[in-house]
Amino acid sequence: MKVGYLGPKGTFSEEAALRYFSNSENETIMYSTIFDVLEAVDEGEVDRGIVPIENAIEGTITMTTDGLINHDVWIEGEAVLPVRLHLLAVEGANLEDIKEIWSIPPALAQCRIFTKKMKAATKHFSSTSGAAEALSTSGRLDAGAVASELAAEIFGLEIAKRDIHDNNCNSTRFLILSKAPNGNIHETDKSMLLITPTEDRPGLLAIILNVFSSLDINLSWIESRPTKKKLGTYRFFIEAALGVHDSNLKKAVTILEAYGHEVRVLGSYKTRKL
Amino acid sequence: MKVGYLGPKGTFSEEAALRYFSNSENETIMYSTIFDVLEAVDEGEVDRGIVPIENAIEGTITMTTDGLINHDVWIEGEAVLPVRLHLLAVEGANLEDIKEIWSIPPALAQCRIFTKKMKAATKHFSSTSGAAEALSTSGRLDAGAVASELAAEIFGLEIAKRDIHDNNCNSTRFLILSKAPNGNIHETDKSMLLITPTEDRPGLLAIILNVFSSLDINLSWIESRPTKKKLGTYRFFIEAALGVHDSNLKKAVTILEAYGHEVRVLGSYKTRKL
Repeated sequence: MKVGYLGPKGTFSEEAALRYFSNSENETIMYSTIFDVLEAVDEGEVDRGIVPIENAIEGTITMTTDGLINHDVWIEGEAVLPVRLHLLAVEGANLEDIKEIWSIPPALAQCRIFTKKMKAATKHFSSTSGAAEALSTSGRLDAGAVASELAAEIFGLEIAKRDIHDNNCNSTRFLILSKAPNGNIHETDKSMLLITPTEDRPGLLAIILNVFSSLDINLSWIESRPTKKKLGTYRFFIEAALGVHDSNLKKAVTILEAYGHEVRVLGSYKTRKL
Repeated sequence: MKVGYLGPKGTFSEEAALRYFSNSENETIMYSTIFDVLEAVDEGEVDRGIVPIENAIEGTITMTTDGLINHDVWIEGEAVLPVRLHLLAVEGANLEDIKEIWSIPPALAQCRIFTKKMKAATKHFSSTSGAAEALSTSGRLDAGAVASELAAEIFGLEIAKRDIHDNNCNSTRFLILSKAPNGNIHETDKSMLLITPTEDRPGLLAIILNVFSSLDINLSWIESRPTKKKLGTYRFFIEAALGVHDSNLKKAVTILEAYGHEVRVLGSYKTRKL
């Protein structure tokens, strides 16, 4: 099976892909953006895709929500990966000499207490592993990169300081995508809906949420995204704690549609810890 | 009056700061992160700060929501700036020779149709104007930067292609911050609350939103942000279409507190078009 994931090498997305699709018969294919992964699934270039949807610290990864709106794909799985960030350095570097820290803005934001204490300047890269690779190439002893242990291994860097994240329970949630539903949907226990209201009116989200609570459906995640048509108008991603086969979930969809909202079922899945 | 804003020179944040605080008696001071602006206001280093909170395409700017959680500041104003993105190039460059486009990820995401048609690679920078400055310094004829007209002027670049954003009604909403309320709060007509539920239970957000709808309070913006303690637990930013002086808004706060939620009033303001 061909599996598309977000590169470059050494990112948490690669780690999630390798762990989830650990079967040796799977061929993992690296893409340079989340959109490219979604497109590859949509166009049948790969059989499965894996993309990050939410990080415990940073919140929703909006490239993924927005990509789901524009692609015809099905969410068939969910996986949660613990995230540990380290300060990587070139061999022989001393922690106290590091005056510049390289990484992506969210990773730097997650290590704010540490970087502040280090009194180090920060420099932005496109990925944590891209920062690690640049550091390795530069050979600089006065700079460090915030990245994963996998990145340290790949780019031959040392871990100058382990677990530098402010918060100890960081993790990232990934979605596993296919073109269409596979396997036994009756074994799933979560589903994701995209609700696009046809009119903007006071109390809109309250009305939508009441449909779920009136049917005793617990919601595990709600995210509003701009319609991109007018500032202040939104669509809603809602994750319900029921698979799409459940009769109550079907009722909720019917009621929401009767209210005039556009409802798209994006997938039905179970969660898995990595 | 000293005004803190997010740099570097030539960003939309600078444009918003210069337009909102156009009085010549104001002194604008540039900071390198949104957090630094919030901190400068919190610590009295500046009298006012201006930070982006939401873009019509990209949605909420989470550095700002998360910064509001951690700083003791007051939102006293709101301003909406139209956003227009152009492809900047070095003088003499030909559009068809541009094979690499430089900018921040959100700006590149907003020009996806254009960059796809150009078949250009993309390169990430820390700011739109940072990309423009790097381009100007490099003198490269095979690269372009996605940035504002202000950045083109500042860094002596040409506009190779005007208005390359996918969407024509893009704008960014800014918040104006002070340390404590000033002026006549009775003239404001919007307010922002930060609601931190003390327990996670089914239908939590529905219950919160029903408090507002039962009092006929219209909500203009809702954003959930992770508690950063456990994946899947959230706090809510809610913008109500009433100033904090309004008796119904006061009732809503009292009721939410009676439910046991922690409610922080972040500010009361009016909106202004830039």
